[in-house]
Amino acid sequence: MRTEHSSPADLAALSPAEVRARFRAGLVRPTSGLAAGYAQANLIIVPKSHAFDLLLFAQRNPKPMPLLGVLDAGEVTSDLLAGGDIRTDVPRYVVYEDGVPVAEPTDITGYWREDLVTFIVGCSFTFENALVAGGVPVAHQEQGVNVPMYRTSTRCAPAGEIAGPLVVSMRPVPASQVADAVRITSRYPAVHGAPVHVGAPGELGIADLAAPDFGDPVAIPDGHVPVFWACGVTPQAAVMESRPPLAIGHAPGHMLITDARDADYLVP
Amino acid sequence: MRTEHSSPADLAALSPAEVRARFRAGLVRPTSGLAAGYAQANLIIVPKSHAFDLLLFAQRNPKPMPLLGVLDAGEVTSDLLAGGDIRTDVPRYVVYEDGVPVAEPTDITGYWREDLVTFIVGCSFTFENALVAGGVPVAHQEQGVNVPMYRTSTRCAPAGEIAGPLVVSMRPVPASQVADAVRITSRYPAVHGAPVHVGAPGELGIADLAAPDFGDPVAIPDGHVPVFWACGVTPQAAVMESRPPLAIGHAPGHMLITDARDADYLVP
Repeated sequence: MRTEHSSPADLAALSPAEVRARFRAGLVRPTSGLAAGYAQANLIIVPKSHAFDLLLFAQRNPKPMPLLGVLDAGEVTSDLLAGGDIRTDVPRYVVYEDGVPVAEPTDITGYWREDLVTFIVGCSFTFENALVAGGVPVAHQEQGVNVPMYRTSTRCAPAGEIAGPLVVSMRPVPASQVADAVRITSRYPAVHGAPVHVGAPGELGIADLAAPDFGDPVAIPDGHVPVFWACGVTPQAAVMESRPPLAIGHAPGHMLITDARDADYLVP
Repeated sequence: MRTEHSSPADLAALSPAEVRARFRAGLVRPTSGLAAGYAQANLIIVPKSHAFDLLLFAQRNPKPMPLLGVLDAGEVTSDLLAGGDIRTDVPRYVVYEDGVPVAEPTDITGYWREDLVTFIVGCSFTFENALVAGGVPVAHQEQGVNVPMYRTSTRCAPAGEIAGPLVVSMRPVPASQVADAVRITSRYPAVHGAPVHVGAPGELGIADLAAPDFGDPVAIPDGHVPVFWACGVTPQAAVMESRPPLAIGHAPGHMLITDARDADYLVP
């Protein structure tokens, strides 16, 4: 593992292919702010034996699992990562065996099998840029931490052997700007779209906003309302519950940087 | 088969469940205009052995094959047809064996197997109502015929064993209203959305608009431009080319009438 010497500002100006090449060469760091303007994505990889069920799970749960692309079994590249390799181009992975995280490697070449199917899933980083551009503050960015994520008591629609809870991310929004946050994010349906829940965390089964299941807690200023969006970690929670023999995801905050532009996912 | 005694106006006022019950009891007729305000859908059913490939085909080709729902293997009902039965509630089906149409039954109970997976696919009838409401004439409705559909020279993105041409429907639109037609239909991405092509049919490999591959020809008035939308017959064209051992679709114009409202598929 190489030490990080580049500043985020340097890395922000690189192309997606250049950033992926750095990761392939050994760089390890969270991806927030890198290759500005390009869509980052969640990753989930399962054997072909479980791929139909996971694809059906995505079809039935498009808000937490909006698909940007699905590779053929054994395929390691696509036009979303031209010239890249899905086994090396994400800075850090999580490997699950029977639903249990067993390793967090920076390269999954040693785990690769010809029957593995890769799912590339939209990420809310895309609409966060639009929120900031629209004047809506993004607290976890301002506080320099990862977004807080919570397992909820809401169940996803199951599909075959795949079932699990809805996972949400939370951003506190000033009460006067909640409508703006809804309006702006609803225009990005491919990256989770409009919020699934505004206020009242108890209704989602969230007992303590200060204790997220993934990511970091953020302070909620007075006059701000917690707003919840469906989260791309949902398929990893489903894998933990449903226990396929093997699954591989990205490590939180360590996303796949794609060649698609954020603007490609904006609808009218 | 029962003779049709009800006028469309009578049937337009029925609920989706009531219309499905009529079909189940033996009524056979095209569904245009029935259960006004409710979404009609294309149907394609394949064995589980081909379901992953067809689901991946849909994911890769969302404009011609937007999924409203996918049933579990062997399942014959869903919340899109509450209390209904997918084997009896469509007025007429087409059965394909090795890609060849072999029957057009009004009930597929005799063909049913526990490994069959049903795909319910959005239909442009939904946005036609919005076009009319927006003042854009829909020529084939005015001329009392089925919409003309064409196999194009554009290939869909293949998925495993499933491949085929893009099929499009065509509506002539006054040149001054083409922008309106784009704007209105783009708000219905779940039912094919914005046009894939405006004018220049030769670029799609369509030699003669008067000779559609499915449906009926329509007259194109002076000053109107042929506008092409991706069509839900595309999976049936893929089945004909890809030749799974068994597949079942709806007969053209004889759609599944769902409990979803057209308005459910409107985005901001």
